[in-house]
Formats: sequence, structure tokens, C-alpha cells
Amino acid sequence: MTAISSFAALTAHLKDVCCRKRLAVANAVDEHTLAAVMRALDAGIIEAYLIGDVAAIESPHLFESGHSAHIHIIDCPDVQSATLEAVRMVREGEADILMKGLVNTDVILRAILDKERGLLPPGETLTYNAALEIPRYHKLLFFSDPAVIPSPTLEQRKAIIRYAIATAHKFGIERPKVALIHATEKANPKIHYMQDYLDVMQCWRQGEFGDVIMDGPMDVFLALDRERGSIKHVPTPVLGDADVLIFPSFESANSFYKGLMIFAGAEMGGLLQGTSKPVVLTSRSESIQSKFYSIAMGCVLC
Amino acid sequence: MTAISSFAALTAHLKDVCCRKRLAVANAVDEHTLAAVMRALDAGIIEAYLIGDVAAIESPHLFESGHSAHIHIIDCPDVQSATLEAVRMVREGEADILMKGLVNTDVILRAILDKERGLLPPGETLTYNAALEIPRYHKLLFFSDPAVIPSPTLEQRKAIIRYAIATAHKFGIERPKVALIHATEKANPKIHYMQDYLDVMQCWRQGEFGDVIMDGPMDVFLALDRERGSIKHVPTPVLGDADVLIFPSFESANSFYKGLMIFAGAEMGGLLQGTSKPVVLTSRSESIQSKFYSIAMGCVLC
Repeated sequence: MTAISSFAALTAHLKDVCCRKRLAVANAVDEHTLAAVMRALDAGIIEAYLIGDVAAIESPHLFESGHSAHIHIIDCPDVQSATLEAVRMVREGEADILMKGLVNTDVILRAILDKERGLLPPGETLTYNAALEIPRYHKLLFFSDPAVIPSPTLEQRKAIIRYAIATAHKFGIERPKVALIHATEKANPKIHYMQDYLDVMQCWRQGEFGDVIMDGPMDVFLALDRERGSIKHVPTPVLGDADVLIFPSFESANSFYKGLMIFAGAEMGGLLQGTSKPVVLTSRSESIQSKFYSIAMGCVLC
Repeated sequence: MTAISSFAALTAHLKDVCCRKRLAVANAVDEHTLAAVMRALDAGIIEAYLIGDVAAIESPHLFESGHSAHIHIIDCPDVQSATLEAVRMVREGEADILMKGLVNTDVILRAILDKERGLLPPGETLTYNAALEIPRYHKLLFFSDPAVIPSPTLEQRKAIIRYAIATAHKFGIERPKVALIHATEKANPKIHYMQDYLDVMQCWRQGEFGDVIMDGPMDVFLALDRERGSIKHVPTPVLGDADVLIFPSFESANSFYKGLMIFAGAEMGGLLQGTSKPVVLTSRSESIQSKFYSIAMGCVLC
């Protein structure tokens, strides 16, 4: 498999493998969610299970789309039961991917985290990984965690890294280059998260993360810009060519990607991590495009 | 005074006021530093005091530039004494702005922090503020602190904010809009730095920061993008029009600006804060352009 280096390449790849994934959408009643689902139907990559109030779902353009053979509506008038039903379908193998529609994040997270009826296997860590397509970067850039764990512990950090590497592998990147991002390369253990990075590097040297290239702490210049990075004279095999950025805290990952979406034309897709099946949990402020890319990521990961 | 909304407007303003500031450069022997000083001489905004090994400074293009009347060389063959001499000149009023040349950051910081012969008055906090010119943003964006204080305490945070506001005022922004940046608007005090933000907002309501607009915590979308911010339905007077971003930690500020420099064509100038006089302390990986903009910022701030 050739590495998938853009979202266009991702949808092309999914069309090639020609196998629709079953997407269960919890309370699929809002325009943004339905528009993203429509785009995935247009791309021919999903079978849609829309769970919610049937009167709210049955918007005319869905059924004039020519995709009606791939749309299945499950009537569930209240949000709570629509959410539980979507989670149940995914848990019991009736669907491959869960997607949040018009549901409060708290409500769906509670359903996902439920020990008996949820989607998080024991011992796993709930976190978030996203792929960013930046017009001026030469490939997709995966990064964690912009949304779920504010200040990861060392164990959470290691799980975050394992999931990010697994995602990169699914995109056909055989030996991903993983950069542990911080403000500086000087690993002063008095600075927050630096000791964790030193410990992670030690684990990597002992083979804990498999056959990947890892280095850090390093700054964004060193990870993503060969020219600016070279001026620093810090030798690293990652130099300007990172596949995966691990950010120290969720506020740093969050500010990084939002700045690039506003000012660099970046597009993003992302998924919850640690769950037994892919979960699309985009926020209101994300575009239809982002939601569609997230669905496509879910398709390649399940 | 009209607000200065770009670096071009900044140099135009400095030419208008027509008063050269005296720049003392510690160990002014590297190409990058000398090129930035040359640009400031071309712009007619400084009188240059180049301190260092005279043989290394006297590059032909400096003296063929037609600026020789505004260039003063002070022979100081070793780095340590060149640094101390530059700091002394600024402290004793013989120069207005200090600039780091080919000196280790540790060495010049030690000289600046020296209680008796340094540049940090008692009670002040050493931190960093920078201005970012992003092609797609409608004005200069000031932000703190990408470089000096890893995890500010509440007292340090308040100093950081005071200095950033003072800088915005010097740029002619009468009532700057200050955004306290985080990954989310939900001020959960269990999340790192959120309690400090709540305390800062309380101080602002009590008038501690003067006549400025302040809000937070908020994310980068809300602070800088009216359209994406509006979708969140979080009412804020800052919405998409921030002048100043206060970042929770230095790693978040650092990743934010470096991403935008690489992928959004952003340019930056920055200065140490808390010192009695402006200090230009750019790093090796910053461009000649950035160093020049930092000098220009120093000129408007002294």
C-alpha cells in the first residue's frame, strides 16, 4: 500500500477498496451532520444508519440523492435513546463506525465510557488523534491530543503515542516519524512534560513503540521545516519531515491546529482513540468538510 | 496616533517621528545580526553601537553602505566583556535598546538579570512578548509568552498581561482586546491554568488592567475567526478581533507562532519584557526580517 498523503488520496483509496463501512449516526438530525453524511454517500464509502426522530431526519435532499438504497433510518424520538442505540449497534457489530449528531458531547461520552454497554475496552485510554492537511506541507500530519486529555500522565502519553502510530500505519506509513513537541530541544526536567518525554524516548529505545522513528523534545520548526530546523544544528532524523506530532498538552495541540485552519487553509479530520471501533466526535465549529474527512478516517481505521 | 497595524506601518511611523534610537549590539559579529542592523540603518531608525572584536565587525558592506556616520564600533575582543559593555551602555543611558549578537542566551540573560549591573528592576518579571503579522489577519497580533516562562504563576501571568497591554498601547491601540487562550471556553478549574484565568478575569473586572477589553478562557477560533467563533454561540466582545493573545503555557504559544511562520507566511518581531529598556533577544532560527522587526519594535517601545 502506498502511503496516503492527502484527504483526496484517502477517499480515492477507499473507493478503490470498494467496501462500504456501516456508519451509525446518533441523533442524525442537524444539517451539518447530514451534509457530511451525504458527502460520504456521494463518495460511495459508507452505508448510513441514521438514528433519531424520523420526522427530523427525512429531509427531502437525502432521498432525492439517489443514495436511498444505502440509507437506513431508525426511528428514535429522544436523544438519549438514539445515542444508546447507536452505541449498541457499534458495540454489537451491527455498525463499524459511531458518529455524533446533535448530541451533547457529555451525553455521548457517558454512553461510550459505560463499563458494560460502552465502547472503551478495559485498560484503554480515551484520547483524540487528528490528521491535518496543510497546503504547504508535503503530506498529512497526524497529531495528538487536541481535545480530550488536558495534561497526560506518562501512561496516558504512551497510549496516545501508540494510537497515533497505529493510525499512521493504517494510512500506509510504514515507518512513521514521530516528533515529541515542546518549546525547546533542551530537555530540562524542571519544565513540565520534559521528564515524560525523556521517559518516552527511553521506552522507544527499548523497542516499546515498534519500528518507528522517534525524537524529542523538539520544536515545531525542527519537526516541520527543514530550512528553519537546520539553522538550529540539532541533528534529528525527523528534521522537517514529521508524520506524527505529539503535543505536551491539549492547549498546545488545540492552538496549533486552529491557527493553521484559520490562516493556512488547513483541513482536518479526527477520531476518538482507545475505543473498540472508530468514533467521529467533531464539534459544532468544525466544517462539513472536516466532519466528512473524519468519517473517511473512520473508514480506513475499521 | 493611528494604531500601527503592520510592520510596514511600524517602520513608516518610526521614519515619521524621525528620531533615531541608539542600539547597542552585544558581540555584533555574525552575518544575520549585522544584516538586520543594516536593514534598520537603511530604514533610518537607529544609531548602531556595535560592540565586539573590531576585526570581525568591520565587514566591507557595512562601510560601503553610506551609513558610516551612524555606525559606532566599540572594540571588545571577548564575548563576555562585549556583553557586559553593551548592558552597561543601556543601563547607564548611553544606548536605548540592547540587542544580542553572537552570544549564548545564558550569558546575556545572566548579565541582564545581575542585580546590581543588570536591566531588570526589582519586582519586575522577565518574560517575552511578540507581534505576529499574519497575511490573512487584519492587524498585528501580540502574544505572550512563547519563550521565557514555561508555566507562569498567577503573579507572573498578571505581569505578562500588563506588559502585553503596555506594548499594544505603544502601538497606538487605545483599548486592546485581550484573549486568554485555552483549548476550551469551559472554565473547569481542574484543568491546568483555568483557575488562574478566572482570577485574572476577576482582577480585570476590578480595574487592575485599566481600560482594556478582556475575555477568556477562549479558544483560537473565538479569538481570531469571527465566522468559526460565531458557530460556538459564546458571546464575547473579542470575537474574531483580538489584539493580544495570552497563552496558558510557553509550549502552546511557541507551537502556535511557529506553525503560522512555516505555513501561513507569518512574520514576527519580539522583545524581552520586564526590563528597564527594550531587549532584542532573537534566536538563531529566526530570520533577518524577524530580527529587523524586533529592532523596530524596540524603537517604538523606548
